[in-house]
Amino acid sequence: MAFVYKADPARGEVWKRHFAERRPDLPFHLWPETGDPAQVRYLCAWMPPDDIPGTFPNLEILFSVGAGVDQLPLDTLPPSLPVVRMIEEGLTAGMAEYCAAAVLALHRDLPLYRERQARGDWTAEPVRLAAQRSVGVMGLGVLGQAVLAALRPFGFRLHGWNRSPRAIAGVTVHERLEAMLPQAEILICLLPLTEQTRGILDARLFGMLPRGARIVNAARGGHLVEADLLAALESGQLAAAVLDVAEPEPPPPGHPFWAHPRIWLTPHIASMTQPETAVEAVFANLERHARGEPLVGVVERGKGY
Amino acid sequence: MAFVYKADPARGEVWKRHFAERRPDLPFHLWPETGDPAQVRYLCAWMPPDDIPGTFPNLEILFSVGAGVDQLPLDTLPPSLPVVRMIEEGLTAGMAEYCAAAVLALHRDLPLYRERQARGDWTAEPVRLAAQRSVGVMGLGVLGQAVLAALRPFGFRLHGWNRSPRAIAGVTVHERLEAMLPQAEILICLLPLTEQTRGILDARLFGMLPRGARIVNAARGGHLVEADLLAALESGQLAAAVLDVAEPEPPPPGHPFWAHPRIWLTPHIASMTQPETAVEAVFANLERHARGEPLVGVVERGKGY
Repeated sequence: MAFVYKADPARGEVWKRHFAERRPDLPFHLWPETGDPAQVRYLCAWMPPDDIPGTFPNLEILFSVGAGVDQLPLDTLPPSLPVVRMIEEGLTAGMAEYCAAAVLALHRDLPLYRERQARGDWTAEPVRLAAQRSVGVMGLGVLGQAVLAALRPFGFRLHGWNRSPRAIAGVTVHERLEAMLPQAEILICLLPLTEQTRGILDARLFGMLPRGARIVNAARGGHLVEADLLAALESGQLAAAVLDVAEPEPPPPGHPFWAHPRIWLTPHIASMTQPETAVEAVFANLERHARGEPLVGVVERGKGY
Repeated sequence: MAFVYKADPARGEVWKRHFAERRPDLPFHLWPETGDPAQVRYLCAWMPPDDIPGTFPNLEILFSVGAGVDQLPLDTLPPSLPVVRMIEEGLTAGMAEYCAAAVLALHRDLPLYRERQARGDWTAEPVRLAAQRSVGVMGLGVLGQAVLAALRPFGFRLHGWNRSPRAIAGVTVHERLEAMLPQAEILICLLPLTEQTRGILDARLFGMLPRGARIVNAARGGHLVEADLLAALESGQLAAAVLDVAEPEPPPPGHPFWAHPRIWLTPHIASMTQPETAVEAVFANLERHARGEPLVGVVERGKGY
């Protein structure tokens, strides 16, 4: 029985140390080293090898090293192989902090003031308090709920939308996205990327937001129709955008996002799996597996997340 | 008995409406209109008239319309006249939101990423979580405590320093500023501006912070030695600064702050007295005064705040 890690090698060394300390009974291999492939029961990867059954004939669980699984070729994986998304405290905390930073910066007009500063303009806007500002979150999974929890103490008027509705204290949860959008002065996208959500941040959606709305995309670049964002910023329908993702990453040289004063671009750093807490989440799932209990974070292949 | 308001006239109209509704017994005048000056017992002002005893011989309370009183000529005011700082919910909330926005932006390296974006650079820094970052607050009055309360849920390691030490849950309060500085990766100045605090943000202080520290000045421009900030950013001792204040305001055209990529300048908008909540604070003090009770927010002339 062995565990193979196939992702960033520097982080892999941290995983290796933790496995040596906590699970000395379970041999840990850092890809491309694998030991006897027939012994490998668990694989944690960003991108798995092309032919999983051929490479690891006895694999029992595929762990994604990230929160999303849109990079995995779900259609080609053996249907009986459980695929597990990464749900771990460090990843969740990083996303909550990033989205709170983005929302507060947009709420307090920092992109606008940076533009004014660059031209020597000291003009002030009236101060609006968080209690007078509404925020909408698309995607109410572990990350979306953590972001809402981080925003709640400020007193923002909070809204949320999810494919399968759920009750969250202090949040108005909408069954229909169209019902939430007119109330979202700041909109955060935290959806999984699937065929249904690709291109969801488009002109039609922007047109349903209040005029001058601001958006945060901390999900995937594929959610956004780039040309529609540029047009909405140009027309004033949107005031600013904070984007942690793009498609492709990085955007090509000369892409209009690089130089846009009202698009704040960060290089996919909203949240990263933290080895220290991620190994704990994996250990917990390995124990559930050993006891024959359901794993936490199993991807539903039909939904794609 | 009458009340005179002498500050921003547009906001004064809001005060006037609230007084008409809530205190119809108390005549309200919007400067320069004052009614019979001998009837004026209460003055709320940003800058009072030069000769207060000559203008309003029977004045009983001078309310500052702002949180600070450094703009008032305290030495020339009658010693027996109570001067009251503005302490009101809206002002406090605005400051907490602004400082949280600034701290989170600095924590998540947004100034650095804005610089990289401008040159088409997608390089990522490792993600550090708030639990691994220390923040120090100078000034633990109503505003400083509200800022700390806003930061606490993120898990930052919180430190505070105040002239008169006080206990705050979850915050390491230091008696000596020198003891706090080496532990403040992000430093927030919320001190009153007095002879003792003028120029406190200088090369000596910056040199005691951890290398690469970030600062937020949401107090007064006079706290900062501008040339020392520029030198500390140039040397890398400081990584970035968010400044809501300057001296003078605005900085003159061509001032190096306007174009500096690692100085984020906002036009004194961190917090503004909100008429709706400010009138409530004033009403409460008027009632205390009528009952002969101590007022909330009275300035100690010797300390200057």
